[in-house]
Amino acid sequence: MYTVAVIGATGYAGQELIRLLARHPAAKLTVATGSQATSTPRRLPALARVWDGEVLPLDLERVTAEAEVAFLALPEAASADIAPKLLAAGLRVVDLSGAFRLQTADARARWYPATTEMPSGVAYGLTEFEREAIRSARLISNPGCYPTASLLALLPLARAGLIAPASDVIVDAKSGLSGAGKAPTDRTHFSENHGSVSAYGVFGHRHTPEMEQALGRAVTFVPHLVPLDRGLLSSNYIRLVDQTTSAQIAVAFEQAYSGAPFVRLTGSDLPEIKHVAWTNFCDIGWRVDEATNRAVVVSVIDNLIKGAAGSAIQNFNVMMGTDECAGLR
Amino acid sequence: MYTVAVIGATGYAGQELIRLLARHPAAKLTVATGSQATSTPRRLPALARVWDGEVLPLDLERVTAEAEVAFLALPEAASADIAPKLLAAGLRVVDLSGAFRLQTADARARWYPATTEMPSGVAYGLTEFEREAIRSARLISNPGCYPTASLLALLPLARAGLIAPASDVIVDAKSGLSGAGKAPTDRTHFSENHGSVSAYGVFGHRHTPEMEQALGRAVTFVPHLVPLDRGLLSSNYIRLVDQTTSAQIAVAFEQAYSGAPFVRLTGSDLPEIKHVAWTNFCDIGWRVDEATNRAVVVSVIDNLIKGAAGSAIQNFNVMMGTDECAGLR
Amino acid sequence: MYTVAVIGATGYAGQELIRLLARHPAAKLTVATGSQATSTPRRLPALARVWDGEVLPLDLERVTAEAEVAFLALPEAASADIAPKLLAAGLRVVDLSGAFRLQTADARARWYPATTEMPSGVAYGLTEFEREAIRSARLISNPGCYPTASLLALLPLARAGLIAPASDVIVDAKSGLSGAGKAPTDRTHFSENHGSVSAYGVFGHRHTPEMEQALGRAVTFVPHLVPLDRGLLSSNYIRLVDQTTSAQIAVAFEQAYSGAPFVRLTGSDLPEIKHVAWTNFCDIGWRVDEATNRAVVVSVIDNLIKGAAGSAIQNFNVMMGTDECAGLR
Amino acid sequence: MYTVAVIGATGYAGQELIRLLARHPAAKLTVATGSQATSTPRRLPALARVWDGEVLPLDLERVTAEAEVAFLALPEAASADIAPKLLAAGLRVVDLSGAFRLQTADARARWYPATTEMPSGVAYGLTEFEREAIRSARLISNPGCYPTASLLALLPLARAGLIAPASDVIVDAKSGLSGAGKAPTDRTHFSENHGSVSAYGVFGHRHTPEMEQALGRAVTFVPHLVPLDRGLLSSNYIRLVDQTTSAQIAVAFEQAYSGAPFVRLTGSDLPEIKHVAWTNFCDIGWRVDEATNRAVVVSVIDNLIKGAAGSAIQNFNVMMGTDECAGLR
Repeated sequence: MYTVAVIGATGYAGQELIRLLARHPAAKLTVATGSQATSTPRRLPALARVWDGEVLPLDLERVTAEAEVAFLALPEAASADIAPKLLAAGLRVVDLSGAFRLQTADARARWYPATTEMPSGVAYGLTEFEREAIRSARLISNPGCYPTASLLALLPLARAGLIAPASDVIVDAKSGLSGAGKAPTDRTHFSENHGSVSAYGVFGHRHTPEMEQALGRAVTFVPHLVPLDRGLLSSNYIRLVDQTTSAQIAVAFEQAYSGAPFVRLTGSDLPEIKHVAWTNFCDIGWRVDEATNRAVVVSVIDNLIKGAAGSAIQNFNVMMGTDECAGLR
Repeated sequence: MYTVAVIGATGYAGQELIRLLARHPAAKLTVATGSQATSTPRRLPALARVWDGEVLPLDLERVTAEAEVAFLALPEAASADIAPKLLAAGLRVVDLSGAFRLQTADARARWYPATTEMPSGVAYGLTEFEREAIRSARLISNPGCYPTASLLALLPLARAGLIAPASDVIVDAKSGLSGAGKAPTDRTHFSENHGSVSAYGVFGHRHTPEMEQALGRAVTFVPHLVPLDRGLLSSNYIRLVDQTTSAQIAVAFEQAYSGAPFVRLTGSDLPEIKHVAWTNFCDIGWRVDEATNRAVVVSVIDNLIKGAAGSAIQNFNVMMGTDECAGLR
Repeated sequence: MYTVAVIGATGYAGQELIRLLARHPAAKLTVATGSQATSTPRRLPALARVWDGEVLPLDLERVTAEAEVAFLALPEAASADIAPKLLAAGLRVVDLSGAFRLQTADARARWYPATTEMPSGVAYGLTEFEREAIRSARLISNPGCYPTASLLALLPLARAGLIAPASDVIVDAKSGLSGAGKAPTDRTHFSENHGSVSAYGVFGHRHTPEMEQALGRAVTFVPHLVPLDRGLLSSNYIRLVDQTTSAQIAVAFEQAYSGAPFVRLTGSDLPEIKHVAWTNFCDIGWRVDEATNRAVVVSVIDNLIKGAAGSAIQNFNVMMGTDECAGLR
Repeated sequence: MYTVAVIGATGYAGQELIRLLARHPAAKLTVATGSQATSTPRRLPALARVWDGEVLPLDLERVTAEAEVAFLALPEAASADIAPKLLAAGLRVVDLSGAFRLQTADARARWYPATTEMPSGVAYGLTEFEREAIRSARLISNPGCYPTASLLALLPLARAGLIAPASDVIVDAKSGLSGAGKAPTDRTHFSENHGSVSAYGVFGHRHTPEMEQALGRAVTFVPHLVPLDRGLLSSNYIRLVDQTTSAQIAVAFEQAYSGAPFVRLTGSDLPEIKHVAWTNFCDIGWRVDEATNRAVVVSVIDNLIKGAAGSAIQNFNVMMGTDECAGLR
């Protein structure tokens, strides 16, 4: 049983962490805090009977005194500031922000300028591809929700050498509104989204360099907001190397995920958000046009679970050596 | 052709007014302003090609110079302040706020304290029951969205003496989120409403005294937010006087609305929001249990049209003596 | 560990039963069948990795050979036919249909004519009020989704004698579409419900006699479909006996539910569907107008969990003597 | 004033045609029929007071006797059968099906096998690019909803020679459920779509050859269903020829649509479905990455108006020589 803290507990990802940790068999949630020392203490009525504790103002001394592992659900500048202090105090950290996702100083300077230095012992938390690094990590940098869905769809084919070298990779993603955060804005107003769909962040979204870093190639990424709360569908368009068969694609996926408890392959039955909402599953399906070497890979996740809190716990499980599925069934 | 102004043009009701007035055959929209003298000038991209004017800062001199009639889509305190000035300058006014809806000083003191005095020439704009007063009015106080739906359902029966004297009248209403206004708040956040329903304002909503004033009796009114954008359904529960027949109910409705172009009676086929969205119609249906003298009357409107901008224009038409349906088909 | 069967496994309630039973610590799901002997065998892709069994054609011999307890998620005529046979074979039964909910032969003849006889050992499964009967039952008749929400809101006040004797009780309920079943009809078409609300079943819904039986008085009940998938909010309007205080109401609720793990009282903060979706909780809040003896009690549940599969499992837990919360956290 | 008929009047596109034609200043709706000679006569309650006629069984003699122009909102096999007969009887026809969209016999044999011959006088009704052909046409084959959105986004760039010759063109489209038709199916069930998104028709949708025919090149097209009723957003991904500037893109769009009343260019402010719902507008915005020659063009329409009934009326207006905007403001 490990003592754990959640920092940034009142946002959507933070509350989801609490909901999941409250019934985790190997974690004991000892302290939950807001994102600032001046946050007002509050309870979470939606989680009554699930977790009846109080969310306290941020207090790093208390966190380090009461927890062995801290989950950070904070804006990246806050994570960049706090994570090194927690590491220095001997805690392990699972960070849900983007602060520590990019490996080169140049990339961080452009996309996450608050991250002025990279601690040692950081693993990128795309669990299915990074188990070994995660096991020995001190800080796990949890992937973004969009990269989680698109990389799980594309990495098996990229690593199998099946994507044509000079070709375009296009990621068209559709996310529910919880991905836009809990702050009320014009962008998150009900009436602006009901009955609507909109694209945003074209050629400028910070999840693009994260995908490109993992794939080692350029990606055209366009996220869209769709009128639902939880869930994300990523449509990934690629050119295959000549003469790739549909069967080879299937083998690449099966080999990549033979030991992955949270990836379900649906083959030519394309997956739907509905089937993964409120779960830690990523469902992946695909269609191939052998005559023209084109493939479309569709992946779906719950953006708050597999795209945030669930994968954070999956990474915690791997890092601490417990059952990878603990608390996530 | 009358020159008209819209004051408070950037909220949902204000934009709907502009959309409707832009194609009104007897109105020329000469000026549209925000709600404050310091509002930033802006265009309305959603209305491009429909109305390409600019929404200006509030400037009463300009309004009085350029318009014969002013539509106010403002918070009630602003209306309470501005409407008398416009009347004094000789304009006619259609006010969409609650500032001038309650007739007694006591009621206003409690529910609309900013309204310190009532101008002369005010008509309550429930068109179907107030045509005569509206024709000679200088200021029309447009009804609230909830009272519009519930009073159109209940007044025909009340005036026909069919509601049992000492009985309870219960109004359970369900409104789309545009009724909660354009300001982004926790209450209007997409994720807080998607997949949810909530009641609010029990025993304290300002539309209650408005219903009670028109009906001359107590009303239990509970509004609910339902996860849609435009539309409002009101379920109205009454006790009938002994031996009232279903046929009498039908006659009461038919007589009340024989000359009403925007009320459609659906009888025992209960109405649905979908059929009135984006229209100025109010659809009304009912079921009667003759054995127990109970009746349920269901009414539906588009809260932004028949519940706000559309009925404002319907009132404008009646006041100015043009076709009641002008600009609303 | 009890062996259990789910009969009628492909509808929404049936799939929810399987999802919950698959991780139940004291139940082993040994067989799941469709609703007919001619049903095509099929798998449930949405439940892959959760339960990978096959839904078989209905075969009572197999069910009696492999299960100690059968959950029936069937149309009531099918339940009326099958449940007695399973009881005769020695199984215990949890029936989610209405077949065995009404106690008098007259009421059944009118509302559930397929139920020609009532087996012995039947308990009405409103767990919070029937624990003792459930413990010794052979067949639990699970309540309807609407009665679950409204009776949990009203029974504490009725039993405390706080509802005025000759007064009206009005239940205005709003349900998500999963309550309308899985069959594609005009009524369940997406476009007919998106952006809409509709009332149905006025003075004729079969859940009315179920509420009236439990309360011992007439109820005016009007259900509405609202555009969401899972969840149900019930607004319950009552007259209190003279001089009832708000404090008495609170005490009545607290006493009724002091030992109830799945009822959460929210007091004057009215509950929202969002907080109970995907849980077995029923949240209850209320407002009282002491001056006029009126009260509004609002209750919310997930119609597929506390309103169907979850309460079935809660009843199973009580009947078998295991932890009431097993499999429901 | 032209007499017009609507055949197939009870589907979503048919009802939208009636709603629009009922207030069209140059069209008189003389007859509306179902899609079969055996269709039950019925009224359309949602259109009460807008059009109070009766939808009759299909009767071609009556249609030819009473109308000069027939709008067909039928399955393509029915259109393929009926359109030539109406043409032979001297009527002009606007066909909303795909029966006459593809120009080569080979393409029709594969995608629309019911169309065994192509009548003379057919124009493809993408109004903005086919005005001349439409003016002299006898039969207008209205475009599909997806091709309308994607071709309006892509044709200006294709005709300006700005799309790189050997590159991929990818169209990722998101449509509301009304596009899936009025028939209740598993695919159109509310609960299957609420909170979900799904892709379909990959490498096999009949709108693909329609796009490819207009563009003269291969297109990768994937449509998705998103949880809304009316509206369609198309995200179109292209490679530009080397050194194309953002300014050239803007010029190409401005020139293509300088005289187009229903196309609104939003430039780098990407368009949203909400702004075009219930209108005949197509809004188009774009982003260009000059460094890498990539561009994303986003277009939105109301699938039932600009994607079906509205564009049919726009085409009717052009064909008959009336104001292109008549009945569509």
